[in-house]
Amino acid sequence: MSQPQTAITPRRDEDFPEWYQQVVRAADLAENSDVRGCMVIKPWGYGLWENMQRVLDGMFKATGHKNAYFPLFIPLSYLAKEAEHVEGFAKECAVVTHHRLEAAPGGGLRPAPSAELAEPLVVRPTSETIIGATYAKWVQSYRDLPILINQWANVVRWELRPRLFLRTAEFLWQEGHTAHETEKEAREETERMLGVYETFARDWLALPVFTGEKSEGERFPGAVQTLCIEAMVQDRKAIQAGTSHFLGQNFAKASGIQFLSRNNTQELAWTTSWGLSTRLIGTVIMAHADDDGAVLPPRVAPSQIVILPVTPKEETRAAVLEAVEKLAAALRAQTYGGEALRVEIDRRDIGGGTKSWEWIKKGAPLRVELGPRDLEKGSVAVSRRDRGPKEKEFLSVDDFTAKAAEMLGSIQDGLLARATALRDQHTVEINSKEEFYQFFTPKRADKPELHGGFALAHWNGSREVEDKIKEDLKVTIRCIPFNDQGGPGTCIFSGEPSKQRVVFAKSY
Amino acid sequence: MSQPQTAITPRRDEDFPEWYQQVVRAADLAENSDVRGCMVIKPWGYGLWENMQRVLDGMFKATGHKNAYFPLFIPLSYLAKEAEHVEGFAKECAVVTHHRLEAAPGGGLRPAPSAELAEPLVVRPTSETIIGATYAKWVQSYRDLPILINQWANVVRWELRPRLFLRTAEFLWQEGHTAHETEKEAREETERMLGVYETFARDWLALPVFTGEKSEGERFPGAVQTLCIEAMVQDRKAIQAGTSHFLGQNFAKASGIQFLSRNNTQELAWTTSWGLSTRLIGTVIMAHADDDGAVLPPRVAPSQIVILPVTPKEETRAAVLEAVEKLAAALRAQTYGGEALRVEIDRRDIGGGTKSWEWIKKGAPLRVELGPRDLEKGSVAVSRRDRGPKEKEFLSVDDFTAKAAEMLGSIQDGLLARATALRDQHTVEINSKEEFYQFFTPKRADKPELHGGFALAHWNGSREVEDKIKEDLKVTIRCIPFNDQGGPGTCIFSGEPSKQRVVFAKSY
Repeated sequence: MSQPQTAITPRRDEDFPEWYQQVVRAADLAENSDVRGCMVIKPWGYGLWENMQRVLDGMFKATGHKNAYFPLFIPLSYLAKEAEHVEGFAKECAVVTHHRLEAAPGGGLRPAPSAELAEPLVVRPTSETIIGATYAKWVQSYRDLPILINQWANVVRWELRPRLFLRTAEFLWQEGHTAHETEKEAREETERMLGVYETFARDWLALPVFTGEKSEGERFPGAVQTLCIEAMVQDRKAIQAGTSHFLGQNFAKASGIQFLSRNNTQELAWTTSWGLSTRLIGTVIMAHADDDGAVLPPRVAPSQIVILPVTPKEETRAAVLEAVEKLAAALRAQTYGGEALRVEIDRRDIGGGTKSWEWIKKGAPLRVELGPRDLEKGSVAVSRRDRGPKEKEFLSVDDFTAKAAEMLGSIQDGLLARATALRDQHTVEINSKEEFYQFFTPKRADKPELHGGFALAHWNGSREVEDKIKEDLKVTIRCIPFNDQGGPGTCIFSGEPSKQRVVFAKSY
Repeated sequence: MSQPQTAITPRRDEDFPEWYQQVVRAADLAENSDVRGCMVIKPWGYGLWENMQRVLDGMFKATGHKNAYFPLFIPLSYLAKEAEHVEGFAKECAVVTHHRLEAAPGGGLRPAPSAELAEPLVVRPTSETIIGATYAKWVQSYRDLPILINQWANVVRWELRPRLFLRTAEFLWQEGHTAHETEKEAREETERMLGVYETFARDWLALPVFTGEKSEGERFPGAVQTLCIEAMVQDRKAIQAGTSHFLGQNFAKASGIQFLSRNNTQELAWTTSWGLSTRLIGTVIMAHADDDGAVLPPRVAPSQIVILPVTPKEETRAAVLEAVEKLAAALRAQTYGGEALRVEIDRRDIGGGTKSWEWIKKGAPLRVELGPRDLEKGSVAVSRRDRGPKEKEFLSVDDFTAKAAEMLGSIQDGLLARATALRDQHTVEINSKEEFYQFFTPKRADKPELHGGFALAHWNGSREVEDKIKEDLKVTIRCIPFNDQGGPGTCIFSGEPSKQRVVFAKSY
């Protein structure tokens, strides 16, 4: 069977959104379920998430946090406590109104009318309110602070136009919720966790990100300050890949998190929250995948090396399988980034070509073929996912075992370099309104997704200007970067003074 | 401040159910939330669960399973597919009927009448139906089998009389769901996973368990066979600590999991499911805790060793803290059960007595005090949680470092020995109906929980006998043990033949 020119149809440059859906499917990462907006995360996709979880969890613990678990359900009245928050969140939620089913008169089942809840429960879209109510009970004195807790959980935000990983009704995430004695400590925490996200995105996911503060219009409902990491993906759009919120005393006031201070006065705590979700999987795909499928960063790939035994004849089969086991054991004794290499042997009895293409589409960093002829020569044929699908390097088993970790490192570094080059190439300083509008105008009518990328432009800080741009171009301020991008200037929209250039982009 | 005679009031022998609640609270494991039936799992309790998860997850992977994630919501119609299953489960469920909130006319929020779902969604009480529907899409040919998948998730079963860990509306668990080509493979899988549970309960949780099959009356709704592990706790009641179900082709038929066989015929797959939940935390507490609080098995304790620096004077404080850090580092370089020792330093500036009692109540296996005088002598004062609260052993720092893992092992073994002795002491062969009724009749009217324990008795296999005993005594058949307990005999209730003795008990 001859392969098509590319394994994924359409290609990125033909139809980026459709290409993305096809990559997720071909890579066996996830699929839509029969429940509208809810996805099934398949083992390969979940393995990626498990690796992300393990690394992040270690980073959270190294910065003093512990995990805990809070209820899935939030009483309706809690959501109404923090006015801005409810405004931003309350709309699209799953609402539980009954706690029992019964046989329906016409057959089947129905919610039992006699089991209607006195107060409906909302499936958590985020947990600030329920965790705030809990912290209010835990905190009495400054000695009870700080509280540094993280939760790994599922959350639900009803979506009318769901898209695998990027926007699903149910998704998995972590949400950190901390309470502090002073504003300074809470602000430091907010920045510290953004730093963790930036490091994780860069060093594990090979994603270079802009770090900075959200404008008022893009801020988390109820927060004083929202910090974020923003990644550029291959259609030059931005994806918010993680956020860290300084909540001031807003949620503490709404929930009653008060403490007796060192000066014997009653004070409100200062709180933060920070989160990152399975959306990151979509980001990794959009950033690194190519026209043959997913390309996974080695540091988080569920399997870093896939060994494909080639067993054309029954009489050499046993010897090949034995050699393959030995190779796997030798590789697993090696480490990359402080962890034992993750090696999988694909023993399935299907054609070698089909098998190889499956792993290309799944994005396994290294594929290794070992057959009877290799056995004679003591060699293996190694293919890197960051090179052409038919490129092979022939190495002795010992050489490959010794070099495998280095090869993975080289792939990881190459992905970061490539993503950084793309980001830098399409991040442009824009100095006039006309230029700005042109930058974000699609170049071809049939490809609305093609546009300039990230525009670094001066802005006067006005919400009105921001809203107008959003209305005209669907472009938003992704962040006000920490790096001041050359300092003050003149707003290109109003001619008024600007403190610094900010990042404008279309976004997911 | 003088301590009461025991840290927990009431004692176990005064009021076991209330003692349990007080231990969970005093050990800082979990608390009730404002959402009826939903608990907050606090960091110490969640740390215990994380360790259980990590170990079990490794065991699942070592037996060929991978993790995945399926939707939280199940369409109402799915639950109606498997008739027996719906009968057993459908009653107490959280039902989502709306997907949006809106401002209520009188203030506050309400489910938006315009956003009522066409088909209500049920928050998963277990996932057989939704996973079955997914497997039906994945399986076409025998080559697609087996599917060996596990999910870590939250589930909801509405509870009218909730009890922390033992019975909560929302709880955390893992659910394995597998599909196989043959009945034999599926039955082997069912037994294999019960074996994993038994090993885990014994070697990690120090819980000796009975393994066996459930009677028809206690079987999982829709299963052909339910296997279980049953533990005895200190009030001599049984707790079902894990179950593994052979589902035959029942769910495959309901969900349409069919495949083209090796003989080119369409066949239904054979499926299994197996699960274990945060209820195990309650089991560990009820089995091992004492009148001073929790007693955690070292292999799963979040911190195995807690170091309590004693710093009465400012001038020696720095030296003590330095020594404590050094000791912690030396201990962390040691391993127990193949893992680095988990060591925590409690630097809080509160009284030494209070601090020490907190860790006793939390059940940390080893407490180590190090103060200025110890510093001079190069020694530490070590207290084991399985001995009296005031008992201390004085050891040199080097000796303790070298012996710490061994001490943990000795505590772990001691807990298992103690639990086994208790279980054996209260597991009695009962040979007549009169003796049986007496065995389960409370000895004192004010202590309805005091009764004999586990009765090994002959039974004719009849559902009617089973129901009568349940009605009369609230006693059920916990399992038909794999070990045949001496072989055939005569049913003590009916005089009819019995294949073997079965385990009768009151249970949680």
